[in-house]
Amino acid sequence: MPDDLHPTLNAAAVLAELKNLLGAAAVISDAADCARYLTGARYGAGSALAVVRPADTEQVAQLAHYCASQQIKLVVQGANTGLVAASTPDASGHFLVLSTERLNRRIEIDVVNRSVEVDAGVTLHDLNQALEAHGLCFPVDLGANPSIGGMIAANTGGARLIKYGDVRANLLGLEAVLLHPPGTILDLRTALRKNNTGPDLKQLLVGTSGAYGIITRAVLQVHRLPQQTATALVVPRDQAAVLALLQIFEQDCGEFLSAFEGISGQAMAAVLRHVPAMTNPFAPDQLPEYCILIELDSTMSPQKSGLHLEALLNQLLEAHFGELITNALVGRGQDLWRIRHAISESLRSEGRIIAFDISMPRSSLVAFRQRAISLVETRYPHLQVMDFGHWADGGSHFNLVWPHTADAAYDAAVVSELRDAIYDMVVRDYHGSFSAEHGVGPYNQAYYHRYTSEAAQQVAGNIQNMLDPAHLFGLTWFGKQKTS
Amino acid sequence: MPDDLHPTLNAAAVLAELKNLLGAAAVISDAADCARYLTGARYGAGSALAVVRPADTEQVAQLAHYCASQQIKLVVQGANTGLVAASTPDASGHFLVLSTERLNRRIEIDVVNRSVEVDAGVTLHDLNQALEAHGLCFPVDLGANPSIGGMIAANTGGARLIKYGDVRANLLGLEAVLLHPPGTILDLRTALRKNNTGPDLKQLLVGTSGAYGIITRAVLQVHRLPQQTATALVVPRDQAAVLALLQIFEQDCGEFLSAFEGISGQAMAAVLRHVPAMTNPFAPDQLPEYCILIELDSTMSPQKSGLHLEALLNQLLEAHFGELITNALVGRGQDLWRIRHAISESLRSEGRIIAFDISMPRSSLVAFRQRAISLVETRYPHLQVMDFGHWADGGSHFNLVWPHTADAAYDAAVVSELRDAIYDMVVRDYHGSFSAEHGVGPYNQAYYHRYTSEAAQQVAGNIQNMLDPAHLFGLTWFGKQKTS
Repeated sequence: MPDDLHPTLNAAAVLAELKNLLGAAAVISDAADCARYLTGARYGAGSALAVVRPADTEQVAQLAHYCASQQIKLVVQGANTGLVAASTPDASGHFLVLSTERLNRRIEIDVVNRSVEVDAGVTLHDLNQALEAHGLCFPVDLGANPSIGGMIAANTGGARLIKYGDVRANLLGLEAVLLHPPGTILDLRTALRKNNTGPDLKQLLVGTSGAYGIITRAVLQVHRLPQQTATALVVPRDQAAVLALLQIFEQDCGEFLSAFEGISGQAMAAVLRHVPAMTNPFAPDQLPEYCILIELDSTMSPQKSGLHLEALLNQLLEAHFGELITNALVGRGQDLWRIRHAISESLRSEGRIIAFDISMPRSSLVAFRQRAISLVETRYPHLQVMDFGHWADGGSHFNLVWPHTADAAYDAAVVSELRDAIYDMVVRDYHGSFSAEHGVGPYNQAYYHRYTSEAAQQVAGNIQNMLDPAHLFGLTWFGKQKTS
Repeated sequence: MPDDLHPTLNAAAVLAELKNLLGAAAVISDAADCARYLTGARYGAGSALAVVRPADTEQVAQLAHYCASQQIKLVVQGANTGLVAASTPDASGHFLVLSTERLNRRIEIDVVNRSVEVDAGVTLHDLNQALEAHGLCFPVDLGANPSIGGMIAANTGGARLIKYGDVRANLLGLEAVLLHPPGTILDLRTALRKNNTGPDLKQLLVGTSGAYGIITRAVLQVHRLPQQTATALVVPRDQAAVLALLQIFEQDCGEFLSAFEGISGQAMAAVLRHVPAMTNPFAPDQLPEYCILIELDSTMSPQKSGLHLEALLNQLLEAHFGELITNALVGRGQDLWRIRHAISESLRSEGRIIAFDISMPRSSLVAFRQRAISLVETRYPHLQVMDFGHWADGGSHFNLVWPHTADAAYDAAVVSELRDAIYDMVVRDYHGSFSAEHGVGPYNQAYYHRYTSEAAQQVAGNIQNMLDPAHLFGLTWFGKQKTS
């Protein structure tokens, strides 16, 4: 990253000018009021020149223009739910935090086109509430309640990617403000499913952790609300049976398969230990080594169509009982998803989490898991594997816990060594990804440099230099590693 | 575009050096042998320095390096099925045609991951043949048999986008060769559905008509072969009923809807007049004003699942008969698709085609069609509207015919004026696209400049300058219009 803030900059003068530009209400500089914008959802705590909350695209453009002219650094923050420290400032105090939370007025739904134009600061929850009234939803599903702009900057995937795709697959258009030429409004709002009129420039803003521009508005494809859902918790005979079942489900109810989530017995045990309201869905003394949460959904109502997803699910499970399945439980969808979504928080109660957000071709998931568990058991026997994952899209949260009760105290150097070993295995041996859903950001910056080819870093850095020549945007650098 | 070929270049020396680099068999310079590479599928005929057919990525890189060093222009050609003249040389004779047809050896299928790694020159037909043996398919469906590299460069959509997405939605990874730094191999081959490790650089190569790099290999997501299909030809009560039916089908059999294609009575009449084997699917004297080809498909076999798509289709049609539907015919899928795919060729027999490849939000399709027909009838009464379109994705081939039998002779100036009027209506009044499926290329270059914002042209041109500083690649320029 480039050198620090312009050394002659006067913080008081900057604040005065920001209030002049955006109105006093848009500028927060009181330390207590700023606090919640400075600490990340999971990692990172910094300080900032101020927090600014522009009210519309024009104000964002004015702000970008001012920042470019004064060489002031900017970090864009939506709902601050990111996990790679890409939306909170560093410790220098030289960043402005640009919060998009006041860009939250517009939710314009086109029911016939199944699309919505939405301000970047609107949250997923608010969007889905507005859509529900029209029988529609934005089904990119995840534990948190991010802003739409943040979802685009992270290209969130979630648990239902296999049926609905990630954010990129549902993004029809967007509007962004660039730093170069300063304050340029790049208006790429279209609501088109077919459009090949040049480079698809909106892709530059997707999954780039806010380093290429400020997303101010988006046009999303939305989906019809399911009229029925069926859920099962299935105990596979072994790990190979998980992949066999995935293929069977894709063949025999492929159009309805909306989730195929693996949960290790250890992860489920942690949930049962730490969430008092949760009960073992099987039986108190029956904790499987591994299970799969399978969900089907459909826009077809059972009454009108005669299609009953739960019957279909039962039929498929019965057909493979014994051979691939040793236990199964159909129904109780809400309870099962509560268990699934409580894993992260439960792991935290067990000890220090060593979290992984990796992915690989589905065909490698079994081999990877076996080798990775063996590596942990051999070299780090005090750690516990409590993994879960999105088998259908190749995603794995191969999470480990360093228990509070372990003899050895938590050691960052050991964790770093372990992390390197797992990432090397994923990326080099299995052609996988070190960041499936969370993006790069400062948290994954070093891994980006390690695992990205020189040619790709060259192109990505050239684009970043073009869009932000003074490197004022965010904390992620996609070009070649700088030597200091 | 930049000035012509380096004036001191000696064609004989270039040929000798190319043969030296790639082997004599890779270089075609005989006029008769070159001919088929110089004429476009529909538009354009040019001449070339030579046609070169590299055998692998390394040879492509060597060629790119040589061309960059000698300032030789390059146009990349796959199966030469494009419709915007992007893969054939201009008349200058200064271009090399780089044919990818020898990059056609690799088709590596990963059944469990539902993905395939494929050389850019492999054709869609050959790919699907290889996939079929594994119960898989690449369902981006269109009339021609393009190469995979060409499909990526054009981001083809086709008739089944609503269920399967376009090429972009199914592209997991690719490999490309860049001109700058000369001969750089950009290896972005991954087979991952979730991967957010920086800017998704492969997007630069999608839909950019070969102007940003040479695609040498791709990794595609593939789908399971449908186990059943049901097709109907439906006569809607009126145009509003088409949109109402689309919404009903998306709700009541949404997961299975694989095509929803409009066909005007005039287009169908042209097919019946010009293809002797075709018979009117309704009755000899019953030609509807408009009809819809509806297709459902599913991976679920009727025997195993009890799901019968044809019964479901019948049930839905009956439920809306009278109210929205005045006639319907179920079955005969192959015949119906033969009619659909025979439209373009039949129109050509009627006269000179004035073809449009436009799209807009689905909610505007009825209003647009009414206004556009009215414009033609009022101002150009000698033209016949013979349109058809992909209602589910907002695509419309609002094709007109200047009949051979018209009193007025074909007049390019009139066509140009009409084209401007239709495009203005689509883009400015209905926020639509002047090129939904075919890309930009020389054919749509002027419309690109007219309808693309200055900010977007600036960014797109900067990227092109970065990837191809001497403007040697292809015939499409995405930057601001040059004034001469």
